[in-house]
Amino acid sequence: MSEAPKAVVLLSGGLDSTTVLAIAKRQGFTCYALTFNYGQRHKFELEAARKVAESQGVAEHIIANIDWRLFGGSALTDNIEVPKGRDAETIDQQGIPVTYVPARNTVFLSFALAWAEVVGASHIFIGVNAIDYSGYPDCRPEYIAAFQAMADLATKSGVEGRQKLQIHTPLIEMSKAEIVQKGLELGVDYALTMSCYDPSADGLPCGHCDACRLRLNGFEAAGSRDPLTYQ
Amino acid sequence: MSEAPKAVVLLSGGLDSTTVLAIAKRQGFTCYALTFNYGQRHKFELEAARKVAESQGVAEHIIANIDWRLFGGSALTDNIEVPKGRDAETIDQQGIPVTYVPARNTVFLSFALAWAEVVGASHIFIGVNAIDYSGYPDCRPEYIAAFQAMADLATKSGVEGRQKLQIHTPLIEMSKAEIVQKGLELGVDYALTMSCYDPSADGLPCGHCDACRLRLNGFEAAGSRDPLTYQ
Repeated sequence: MSEAPKAVVLLSGGLDSTTVLAIAKRQGFTCYALTFNYGQRHKFELEAARKVAESQGVAEHIIANIDWRLFGGSALTDNIEVPKGRDAETIDQQGIPVTYVPARNTVFLSFALAWAEVVGASHIFIGVNAIDYSGYPDCRPEYIAAFQAMADLATKSGVEGRQKLQIHTPLIEMSKAEIVQKGLELGVDYALTMSCYDPSADGLPCGHCDACRLRLNGFEAAGSRDPLTYQ
Repeated sequence: MSEAPKAVVLLSGGLDSTTVLAIAKRQGFTCYALTFNYGQRHKFELEAARKVAESQGVAEHIIANIDWRLFGGSALTDNIEVPKGRDAETIDQQGIPVTYVPARNTVFLSFALAWAEVVGASHIFIGVNAIDYSGYPDCRPEYIAAFQAMADLATKSGVEGRQKLQIHTPLIEMSKAEIVQKGLELGVDYALTMSCYDPSADGLPCGHCDACRLRLNGFEAAGSRDPLTYQ
């Protein structure tokens, strides 16, 4: 019997990445979960990621620190107020939300690429979504395709004769309701996850930021109930 | 008078990146120098980078820590012996040197991309070189072009109507001798720099690793003398 193929899975501890981890596991991959601490306000995400990784039995889980100075200028890391309420996300003049973190997915995928080479994985899973998402430029399919093309040239695996690394985006065409349904089918315990951009001091999600609203709408459209307690 | 354009310059403290910083300055850019501490054996590089950044009067210099666990499996960060001697670099079966660090330039350029957005820079300088180099896949022109294409889609600046970010590789077609000549013309003090993969405990370069040999040959071919004292 051949060994199970290995995959690096980017895991924030939120609803999407937790579902992606369950999908990768179901597809037969031995999973290496990778989480980043970049001075985000929502540190409860890190604790959620730890619980999720443990509950899903990953081979290894790394929480890597990232120098927050390189990620300044976003409502998630800086002193800008996280937008709330029915008007959803505050966007800037070019239509980009203020919660956008500069080049975040590029940095995350680059580290996944590095770690994949270290552990001998030929697969990377990332929970980007181009349907019910916040309008970040680095969640679009054309961005992922360009990263894949770059990765093919960047690494040892890009050199002829090796298995090329493959980036998987299983959620990219799914609605939030479909993501929730998929996760529930796979037995994901969403009570362990945390999506809120701005939780209370004791870790309760706000229910009003863009991430909470997308999540709550997703559960409702899926005909289910979010197991989290909100503020 | 309009403000000088800003550039993020990747600065290792070695000969190439120090020359690149001088070139960016001469071209009129206000420079933001970015150095990484990733558990490399050659920590004297970091001290060299600090001295170089100070001597060249950069606007800001960040030395960012990178989780070394994500960069395992290279002679530069792991317990593999750094190759020495006339046979130069030890390569693996696919022709990649053992000093190759997984996805290193991809991670470095990704952080440069993030910081460029933070400081409002539309330019990134990196000292990759495809002539007198060590055979790393992520030093090739086609790799840089692919990263540029990805960057165009990754960030706010990639969204229509904004100035696109531009990656500059002024050394990519230069021989090591030409790089040394260029730097000397620009008044670079190469005594501040450090290229060695495996310096002594008191910071003297070995003179025998691939980086030292390329450097010494470069000075010789340029008809000059390396100001460093070797072991």
